Amino acid sequence: MATTLSAIGLLVASNPVPESQTNQAWDVLLDVQAARGGPLHERLTAALREAIRTRRIAAGDLLPPSRSLAADLGCSRWAVTEAFSQLIAEGYLEARTGSGTRVRWSGDDGPASERAPVPAPHVDPPQFDLAPGLPDLRAFPRRAWANAVQSQVGAVAFTELGHPLPEGHPRLRELLTAYLRRSRQAVTTAQNVTLCSSVTDAVRRLCRALAAEGITAIGCEEPGWTRLRTVIRSAGLETVPIRTDEHGLRVTDLADHPGLRAVLVTPAHQFPRGTVLAPERRAALLRWARETDGVVLEDDYDAEFRYDRRPIGTLQGMDPARVVLLKSLSKTLSPALGIGWIVAPQRWTAHLRAYPGTAPPVLDQLAFAGMLQAGDYDRHLRRLRQRYHRRRDALVAEIHRALPDLRVSGIAAGIHLVLRLPDQVDSADVMTAAVSLRLADLRGYHATDDPAANGLVLGYGNLADPAVGDAVRALRDALRSAGLR
Amino acid sequence: MATTLSAIGLLVASNPVPESQTNQAWDVLLDVQAARGGPLHERLTAALREAIRTRRIAAGDLLPPSRSLAADLGCSRWAVTEAFSQLIAEGYLEARTGSGTRVRWSGDDGPASERAPVPAPHVDPPQFDLAPGLPDLRAFPRRAWANAVQSQVGAVAFTELGHPLPEGHPRLRELLTAYLRRSRQAVTTAQNVTLCSSVTDAVRRLCRALAAEGITAIGCEEPGWTRLRTVIRSAGLETVPIRTDEHGLRVTDLADHPGLRAVLVTPAHQFPRGTVLAPERRAALLRWARETDGVVLEDDYDAEFRYDRRPIGTLQGMDPARVVLLKSLSKTLSPALGIGWIVAPQRWTAHLRAYPGTAPPVLDQLAFAGMLQAGDYDRHLRRLRQRYHRRRDALVAEIHRALPDLRVSGIAAGIHLVLRLPDQVDSADVMTAAVSLRLADLRGYHATDDPAANGLVLGYGNLADPAVGDAVRALRDALRSAGLR
Repeated sequence: MATTLSAIGLLVASNPVPESQTNQAWDVLLDVQAARGGPLHERLTAALREAIRTRRIAAGDLLPPSRSLAADLGCSRWAVTEAFSQLIAEGYLEARTGSGTRVRWSGDDGPASERAPVPAPHVDPPQFDLAPGLPDLRAFPRRAWANAVQSQVGAVAFTELGHPLPEGHPRLRELLTAYLRRSRQAVTTAQNVTLCSSVTDAVRRLCRALAAEGITAIGCEEPGWTRLRTVIRSAGLETVPIRTDEHGLRVTDLADHPGLRAVLVTPAHQFPRGTVLAPERRAALLRWARETDGVVLEDDYDAEFRYDRRPIGTLQGMDPARVVLLKSLSKTLSPALGIGWIVAPQRWTAHLRAYPGTAPPVLDQLAFAGMLQAGDYDRHLRRLRQRYHRRRDALVAEIHRALPDLRVSGIAAGIHLVLRLPDQVDSADVMTAAVSLRLADLRGYHATDDPAANGLVLGYGNLADPAVGDAVRALRDALRSAGLR
Repeated sequence: MATTLSAIGLLVASNPVPESQTNQAWDVLLDVQAARGGPLHERLTAALREAIRTRRIAAGDLLPPSRSLAADLGCSRWAVTEAFSQLIAEGYLEARTGSGTRVRWSGDDGPASERAPVPAPHVDPPQFDLAPGLPDLRAFPRRAWANAVQSQVGAVAFTELGHPLPEGHPRLRELLTAYLRRSRQAVTTAQNVTLCSSVTDAVRRLCRALAAEGITAIGCEEPGWTRLRTVIRSAGLETVPIRTDEHGLRVTDLADHPGLRAVLVTPAHQFPRGTVLAPERRAALLRWARETDGVVLEDDYDAEFRYDRRPIGTLQGMDPARVVLLKSLSKTLSPALGIGWIVAPQRWTAHLRAYPGTAPPVLDQLAFAGMLQAGDYDRHLRRLRQRYHRRRDALVAEIHRALPDLRVSGIAAGIHLVLRLPDQVDSADVMTAAVSLRLADLRGYHATDDPAANGLVLGYGNLADPAVGDAVRALRDALRSAGLR
């Protein structure tokens, strides 16, 4: 083929054609497609197309008659006419009776103007990941997941591979209903469960639902997960910071915001402070929701991991009509799975149904349903809880050893803690000094400045157990660079 | 346990407490949790919580002192205090020194007011699915998919199970780049590929991008897929119907809409008419896009399935700077997979990056990447193409046999065709008469009334081969009921 393709170059050189570029045009055919397999007419089509696109053959150029080209290529005329007619159909060539076949395409600058954007410079990931947000990725239950998928792919009826239900597969919604009742003391039926891809996705959809009923603002814990505040504002709603203290959200402060009718809370383990919403405040918050005809959005992100007691049951179970429960597998399995859910009373579920989002892929939903049903998810949580408990103990011990003057808090549950910094060490300086560590500044979670909020939020979900000591020593080095004595 | 729980009932009856309901309250404990396993203190906690929620124990009621209750239950005092303290933390109970433990919770109507919405009445699916939109679900390559997932789950680095890149996994984007170049003659780099969950999702996101650059309307083929028009309008943009004819979109009509700068087209196989956008119109459309500083959204939904020739290459490849290519696996594998992609020039990709959506779950992306790499996807398409070709032939033959006076069109490609109806048979009447068939009315795809558009759009992707004859006969019956002679 290489020899025959170069014949095209010779052909053009020996058969002068009006346009100047044509005699160089055919050299390219030598390279393009020569090595690739496939039928000749396809290779020729691709070669011609490429030559046209890269302007080796210019707009208006005349191609040799198919008979001549075939003879010079040593191939059938059919192959040439196939190539021509494909490119005619695609618009690269046009054939006019009596005028032969010309290049029609005179595209833009085309690929040449499509300068590939410069890829972001490669940055080596920090050696120690102490930022909150990830579970133990090494502990992802690969075999259980693969088996669950395998089993579901084999068993699923073909009718379930059609248009997916946007609210999620009924079987998973039923299993979640039972699971949530049992493990989170949530009260719901399958009709009130909506599958989504993440808590971010859930909040985005709920903002639309809230807006449809005239709710224009959501009270957010201060400090709180910044990402959700951003999502809320992108959705056109206001975020109103509500202070927290050692007993969680200061519910009495809600009285200072008479028009407020929605709050977003993390009552089982406040993020990032780690406090538990005190019992009397739980009751007060629900009372507030009833009195304002409002709603409480309960982000149940890591309640399963409690080390001092049984997990705290949801607010939702105490008042299903006033609480929307949000959850994803992001902190318990992996954020890469893209599975989350919303449990909402009919009032809000109706809006979610009216503006449906996209549920996770059906086979993934069914795989997770299989894990739920087989008890694999519970087993996984139990295993993780033990692992995190040990890691927390190790981390706290290392911190006490290496940084005896610093206080940690929020350690009773979850996979993050708060490290308070002394006045002479500013968290911003630590962030700058920490090159081998991924860290999170407590201030980053504040919507409004709070000078007292001088600390770091350390995540230990994805911190390898053997690395705990070295990570703490690296942290100490960073702290010392930032002024710690 | 049953015996001891009933002891609580006796206990209450024999130890009068102020509130009237209390003596009945404890009967419930007999049923609840008796059969369920788990430690006693958990069963007791659940039983008490349920009793409180269902108001068998009312707000303000006093519980027996833990010592007494333990004695009567024949269990340790610890189990009782555990149960009490869990419910105190959750807010159901409160403990005041000297006053004992009372029920604090006085929730709303609670679960009783959460009337489960009446489930939609079960409707038997029609016997024959002749509606367009689904590929052959029976042909979903289960083993290949399961193997691909298994293989990826085993091989994936744990670091890839963290926060997913919203634009999609780089490996899949690279493989798609090569695949699209090879099979669709698209021209792109991985940076210009964005993963999404469906073409609907893609259009929704693109509307946001277009609006950011002041584009307020999208020209849509008339007739065209209604769903996308709905999505566009929900996103706040206008849809402008542009007529089609036997050569596809009437590109010259674009001159009647001077402000228009975006069109949505199905050039390889117009949906629903099935026509191919003529070559001169392809060039004209791209010229229009350049002249208006506009964009062409190319929905490449079923181009792989062509029976008369090689698939038509994309418009995108002719002018990557002016065309956004949209695609999902909905028509080639399954809509339940939730995998689609957008190929867009930097101008629009930048907006997509600024307002990221959610990519499909990472493991699914990697599984599909594996299938692409192994050639399994190409093999599947080849197999399907042959299957659809045969089914098309069988369907068209049956239609000619049973309905010799009716014309079909759009049969050269894809998995649907148009059946024109004679004047005396109105498509609306056929839709009413067709009880055993799922059908689609051609008029349903028109944005504006067109009396000449009297026909049905028949999908054969998901029609079982053995059912073709019976489906056509059922169709004929429906047509006769609607007046066909």
